[in-house]
Formats: sequence, structure tokens, C-alpha cells
Amino acid sequence: MIIIGLDPSLSCTGWGIVAKSGSRLSHIANGQVKTDPKAPLAERLVVLDRELTDVLLHYRPESAAVEEVFVNKNAQSTLKLGQARGVCLLALARAGLPVAEYATRLVKKAIVGTGGAEKTQVQAMLGVLLPGVKLAGADAADALAVAITHAHLNRG
Amino acid sequence: MIIIGLDPSLSCTGWGIVAKSGSRLSHIANGQVKTDPKAPLAERLVVLDRELTDVLLHYRPESAAVEEVFVNKNAQSTLKLGQARGVCLLALARAGLPVAEYATRLVKKAIVGTGGAEKTQVQAMLGVLLPGVKLAGADAADALAVAITHAHLNRG
Repeated sequence: MIIIGLDPSLSCTGWGIVAKSGSRLSHIANGQVKTDPKAPLAERLVVLDRELTDVLLHYRPESAAVEEVFVNKNAQSTLKLGQARGVCLLALARAGLPVAEYATRLVKKAIVGTGGAEKTQVQAMLGVLLPGVKLAGADAADALAVAITHAHLNRG
Repeated sequence: MIIIGLDPSLSCTGWGIVAKSGSRLSHIANGQVKTDPKAPLAERLVVLDRELTDVLLHYRPESAAVEEVFVNKNAQSTLKLGQARGVCLLALARAGLPVAEYATRLVKKAIVGTGGAEKTQVQAMLGVLLPGVKLAGADAADALAVAITHAHLNRG
């Protein structure tokens, strides 16, 4: 079972792909889709959609998970995030993937053992769970963590 | 010049299409895309994308305008709206359309003459500006109003 995890945002969406075989987990790939903050919004969404669709076509995941949203107090940030997230969910659904959502605390608990874990602890555990993994960045790390959470919690 | 206006929302996105020829304006079509509140979010976004893309393929607008967002104090509502709006902007951009955005007050001012106009006044003016128009609903009316605003303000 190949699983993709996503950490959507307008400026930098992280993605991470793992393979689950029985109880064995292995790293396939991870990366980040960055969009130009100076480009018009619609254009940024097109870039996000295109690059994400390329990843889906290339790695052909069979299952998907997305980090549940931390709703920001800043309404403009929430709107931006929502717009990027809508495009991500659409790309996954168009690829025929069922999409699971996990709260950040749940992801941290699944990876580190405690919902209050620091990002650095999560990243250190990724190195243990996926030996030799090279992280494309913090957002890609978050996405891999979501994919692993899905691998652990989902009976797929 | 054929112009499409959109009033995006997750539950009911309005669309309206007008033709501008010199200073003459005429109604082409209007409608609403409703999604099932009980369906999973990703599925609702797929329905929105598909129906909107059908409209774009059928009427082949050359220019597009979207109502600027009233950012809600309810963060969950803003997130929902953002997700639907992202899908709408993506569909327009993928169709190669430049997308203009107009604030609600500006739309009301362009249609009725005052930014504080009521929705019923806007709808009444639509009947004057587009004789014989039948409105599919309140969201379709808002979308037509945005399209007309774009026709008035844009040197297209």
C-alpha cells in the first residue's frame, strides 16, 4: 500500500510518500511545492495543482491523508490556507483517492508518542522510522508524518 | 466579449454569464452549483469543479470576475469558503481566464449606485439591466452582478 501525506499551504505545500507492507514501512519520496508570493492567486493555485498532480501520476499512491487544519485567528491566513487546501483535496479526489484527515496533535502522538511534541522531535523520529530519509524541508517532514500516521491508524 | 461572474461558496456557488458588445450588455445564462452537505468535503469539491468546468466549456467566456471575500469571523466558515473559492479560481485559471476580483460594496455601487444597497435592490436592477432575465437564485444573481460590474469597469 502506497500512502501520500500532505501538509497544504499556499506558499509551500509539503508532500511525503511511504510504502506499507504488513507492519513494515519504507520511504518512497518527499518534497515541497512552492508558489511565487508575487504571482496572482489563481496562478499560484494552478502551479500547486499541476505539481501535485505530477506527483500523484508519478508515484500512484493508493491512499491519502492530510493534516487537519489549525484554524488561524487571522481570517486572511485562514482564507489563503483554505484556497490551497481546496486545490489539494480536489487533486487527491480527482485521482480517485480516499482522503483521511488527522489533527496535528494526533500526528505528533503517532510519531513521537506525545501530542505536545516539538517539530524537531518529529523530524528526529522520521529518521528512525524511515532510515536514511532526506527531508526536503519542514513541510515535507510534516507531510511524511501524516502519511506514517495514516499507515499506523488505517486498516488499509 | 463574454464575461463570467462567480459567487463562490461550498454549499451553493452562483455563476452568471453576460455578453458585452460596445456599451450593450446582454444576458447569456446563470445558474447555481449546489453540493451535498452530507458528502465528504473532497467529493463536494469535485462536484463543484466538474460542474463549473462544464459551464466554462459550454459558454466559453473570455474574461472572469469573482466577488472578493467577506472574511467571516467564524474561522471554520472562512476555511470552507476558502476551499470552495480555491477550486473556483483554479477552474477559471485552467481555462486560461484572467480573474478580476471586486468587493461586494463596489459591485452594489456599480449596479444600484450605492455600496449599501440591499440584495433585493440589486436583483431588481438586474431585471432592468438584463431585460427578461430569470434568476436561478440569490447566488446566481450575485454572480451576474459581479459579471456586469466587470463589464462596466474593465476595458476589455
